[in-house]
Amino acid sequence: MSAPRANVLLDDRTVEFILYEMLDAEALCNLPDFGEHNRHTFDLFLTSARTLARRVLFPNYRTIDAAPPVLRDGRVYVHPLLKTAWPQLVDLGLISATRGPEVGGAQLPLLVASLASAYLMAGNLSAYGFIGLTSGAAHLLEAFGSTELKARFMAPLYAGEWTGTMALTEPHAGSSLGDIRTRATPTRAGHHLIRGEKVFISAAAHDLAPNVVQMVLARADGAPAGSHGVSLFAVPNRREEDGTLVDNDVAVSGLVHKIGWRGLPSCVLRFGERDDCHGWLVGEPNRGLGQMFQMMNEARIMVGLNGVATASVAYQEALGYARERTQGRLQSQRDPESPQVPLLAHADVRRMLLRQKAIVEGGLALLASTARLADLAAHATDAEERQRAKLLLDLLTPVAKSFPAEAGFESTVLALQVHGGYGYSSEYLPEAFLRDSKLNSLHEGTTGIQGLDLLGRKAVAGGGAALHALSDEVSRTLARARACELDPTWAEQLAEALAELVETTTALAARGAAGDVDSMLAHSHDYLTLFGLVAVGWQWLTMACVAQEALRRGGKDEAQAFYRGKLAAAQYWAVTELPRVAGLAALCRSAEGSFSRLEPDWL
Amino acid sequence: MSAPRANVLLDDRTVEFILYEMLDAEALCNLPDFGEHNRHTFDLFLTSARTLARRVLFPNYRTIDAAPPVLRDGRVYVHPLLKTAWPQLVDLGLISATRGPEVGGAQLPLLVASLASAYLMAGNLSAYGFIGLTSGAAHLLEAFGSTELKARFMAPLYAGEWTGTMALTEPHAGSSLGDIRTRATPTRAGHHLIRGEKVFISAAAHDLAPNVVQMVLARADGAPAGSHGVSLFAVPNRREEDGTLVDNDVAVSGLVHKIGWRGLPSCVLRFGERDDCHGWLVGEPNRGLGQMFQMMNEARIMVGLNGVATASVAYQEALGYARERTQGRLQSQRDPESPQVPLLAHADVRRMLLRQKAIVEGGLALLASTARLADLAAHATDAEERQRAKLLLDLLTPVAKSFPAEAGFESTVLALQVHGGYGYSSEYLPEAFLRDSKLNSLHEGTTGIQGLDLLGRKAVAGGGAALHALSDEVSRTLARARACELDPTWAEQLAEALAELVETTTALAARGAAGDVDSMLAHSHDYLTLFGLVAVGWQWLTMACVAQEALRRGGKDEAQAFYRGKLAAAQYWAVTELPRVAGLAALCRSAEGSFSRLEPDWL
Repeated sequence: MSAPRANVLLDDRTVEFILYEMLDAEALCNLPDFGEHNRHTFDLFLTSARTLARRVLFPNYRTIDAAPPVLRDGRVYVHPLLKTAWPQLVDLGLISATRGPEVGGAQLPLLVASLASAYLMAGNLSAYGFIGLTSGAAHLLEAFGSTELKARFMAPLYAGEWTGTMALTEPHAGSSLGDIRTRATPTRAGHHLIRGEKVFISAAAHDLAPNVVQMVLARADGAPAGSHGVSLFAVPNRREEDGTLVDNDVAVSGLVHKIGWRGLPSCVLRFGERDDCHGWLVGEPNRGLGQMFQMMNEARIMVGLNGVATASVAYQEALGYARERTQGRLQSQRDPESPQVPLLAHADVRRMLLRQKAIVEGGLALLASTARLADLAAHATDAEERQRAKLLLDLLTPVAKSFPAEAGFESTVLALQVHGGYGYSSEYLPEAFLRDSKLNSLHEGTTGIQGLDLLGRKAVAGGGAALHALSDEVSRTLARARACELDPTWAEQLAEALAELVETTTALAARGAAGDVDSMLAHSHDYLTLFGLVAVGWQWLTMACVAQEALRRGGKDEAQAFYRGKLAAAQYWAVTELPRVAGLAALCRSAEGSFSRLEPDWL
Repeated sequence: MSAPRANVLLDDRTVEFILYEMLDAEALCNLPDFGEHNRHTFDLFLTSARTLARRVLFPNYRTIDAAPPVLRDGRVYVHPLLKTAWPQLVDLGLISATRGPEVGGAQLPLLVASLASAYLMAGNLSAYGFIGLTSGAAHLLEAFGSTELKARFMAPLYAGEWTGTMALTEPHAGSSLGDIRTRATPTRAGHHLIRGEKVFISAAAHDLAPNVVQMVLARADGAPAGSHGVSLFAVPNRREEDGTLVDNDVAVSGLVHKIGWRGLPSCVLRFGERDDCHGWLVGEPNRGLGQMFQMMNEARIMVGLNGVATASVAYQEALGYARERTQGRLQSQRDPESPQVPLLAHADVRRMLLRQKAIVEGGLALLASTARLADLAAHATDAEERQRAKLLLDLLTPVAKSFPAEAGFESTVLALQVHGGYGYSSEYLPEAFLRDSKLNSLHEGTTGIQGLDLLGRKAVAGGGAALHALSDEVSRTLARARACELDPTWAEQLAEALAELVETTTALAARGAAGDVDSMLAHSHDYLTLFGLVAVGWQWLTMACVAQEALRRGGKDEAQAFYRGKLAAAQYWAVTELPRVAGLAALCRSAEGSFSRLEPDWL
């Protein structure tokens, strides 16, 4: 019905603000590993990514969404437009961007690479998916593979000649990876024979590249039950024999009809139907889950970014619509002869837009901060700084994954709502963003699992050391807010929320230490929500400080408007969201048992 | 991937509980208008509806969803399975169920008819849609049409020979009905000639029946600008001439690609392309909007029911899945050799299910209570009782419409989440329920508009008379709760929430009276949310009283479990939801201006 509107996907000025004004990305260049970089190289990379996203990915997004991959005679064919875009995606260098020169990488900070990725995700999640999965598989091989496996599998992945993916889930074991049944039988030739079934395996087969390397979790013969008997194998769809690629007995038995990410095939797989599927052990036997989970922080940061990116493109779409679509009149001006006003003039529409902005930019800042912690954890020269960054990274990861999954979804729903009845049709884009967004609460650990991970492990490990470190960080922001004369209630709200978080964690940890794990964890979902409010509140207060300091320095009107927008969103978060923390904290501490003590036949 | 599971759509025992134990539907039979009825006739009607919904509508739901209507050579064709179901739907008698014998109706209370409708909606919203729209159009004609128009148009609608619909929305005027441009030019023959364009007109054309009567809002030549110049016309797609039906110049120029309700065509229409579209004025000239809005309470109750019905079928689907799907182990039992437990054993899954139950059944009780008020407002013998019921009905209608639209949508999202990764595929049903559900916040007045209606009109009209009446009702429930020895904190929570609601309303009304309408209404969305929490909290405390009283009388274990489930959900609402009221009330009173005072260029 309407021609697609240009959409910036992410606001460049906000990305610049987060990167350079808030997080001082340039300071990372003082670390030896990033010594080759400077703001110029960062910006070049960002520009290539955003240009590709805007010119190639986003304009084809709807077309690709409308025609998902097909399975024909056992082969999977993706949308032809993806085939056209693929070489350009590879040329960006994103697959190995954060890796070192020894594997052909650019040794970019994850902070920069993740913001660049966010543009691609916002442009077309599915297209980005092939890159992200390939990067993840190669990184696993780099971290745990032998020299031989690196040469055979990692190198073509980082080069973008082949693609990679992870094959974890089985039909009877979604979240419960210790229950997987895929078998691996050793052979004298050094490889294992793999037999089993996997489901929901993204990009396990396609026609973008001549081969796919799957990182498969399987159970070697004789391995113990549960998660301590799971090993990791590299299983290519085609294996090299006498210099050519031959079929490796990996069959696609079906495609899942996903409701979003519709450019990326999600496969049902059978390994070893003819007993001829070769897999190569990666790392230590029976350590597969642990190895996989060492990559999990990065994978979850990427899921969080997916959520933010989709919420961002949806927000930009809603903002554009609200500026141009006229509808009704203000309560204070009802003259029917007067022209209708833009949607943006209505207070409730502004509420929906500011809420989206607060979620999108607060989430983006949180993800960027988390990525920066990953950079410091891996590359800081000081061991103590690395350790401290790792602590904070581990703590914030489930939050950085879940906040965009939940609040980001809500934000895309608001983008649809701003479009009114038109939002309910597939002539407009928000409904597609809503479908894309819903995956984030499900994969790489459901929101429920993130809550258990955060409260049951991360927040209480080491006597709450990570939370202490976070408190120190937030306290520094509070001091800065007081110094730059922001509205003092904003810092007060955050201080109170932080105190609630710390107090609640201490109380729940004591309960767990006393052996009452069920009561400790009963409200882990509420705890995760609470933590997200505080973490994003911290990001917004930091951004408010930066904005306020800039405003006090003066400047052009246009710049002033930008900073005032940041203050408005920070105020919104402090006044609307942070006051919710006390109620959630009380709930967590109450261990209120309406659902945990529910008998199944009461439902 | 999995065969469709049997789904009860709504829990029969809960419907019985609400109807007879909570709302004493039988007492309505003491009113003369309902004197022909008794529990037996009510149950017969309910049974027919639920049987059709379970045996015919729901089993075909997915098939119909997957193949929406098509427009071919200007004609609209619905799914053949709908054509098979249509005579059975008509035979139920729902189109005229609540109308009097003088128009062939059964004079059933809306309370009973709406619960029967909820089964059909849960089975297939689209199939129900044709019935609901026909009923609404006929009712408009009954209320405002001349004897001649009733004979010509109303009679075949109530008989189910033709179908009806409402044609309000125009491309440039969605929510702003005063801006419609469709013209009506009087002719000497008594009819008007209609010219204009409408969009999103549901069931405006199809092949279920030989004719459709559209209730069209249009502007008669010379009418004043704005809403006071809008008249209502009956415009059939085919008009009678010399005893046969001839084309009435109503053209379908396109179908909207809706994301849900996919069995029901949504049409783009052109009236009078050949200057030969006859329309007949219904009621008074220039009173079209007012007349339409007299039907609005009922229309909005139906939208609320749509939301509850979809949330209910989704909840039942999730509950069934959680009972049969095994996954993982409890935190307290991690032995990998032990079998995996049902999803329902996990606390966080129970949280999601109890939250759904609380929303679904709390919403259903609210809708049923509202429908009962509509019955009393129309049929009570005592004028004062009618007036009081009307006051409460007007007040509760925007809440009964919006709570299911917003919380009901969230509930369907939880149903999807319970399905894990499978929920993300169209092999399972929740994604379809999610799509269906999203319409409710958009049509018949967006949620934003409901908030303005509630706070700007209903809550403050007549010095807050309606809210006083509601306070009296809630106070009676509070006294009952104290008498039956429920956990006293539940009643305390509701009493505090009610006090916050009243206090906030008074404060905001004073602001409006002082002329500061913008500040009064800035947080109308939060006010609506707050009101919904209280209204549903009132329903849950009432249900808890009924359950508690029944438990104290003793009974079989099975019955005990049913009542305990009600107490668990009531506890959940009191402890988890009602405490949110204070924060929302503070926000409303603060008139916090982060978004209302936002400049457009700050975004």
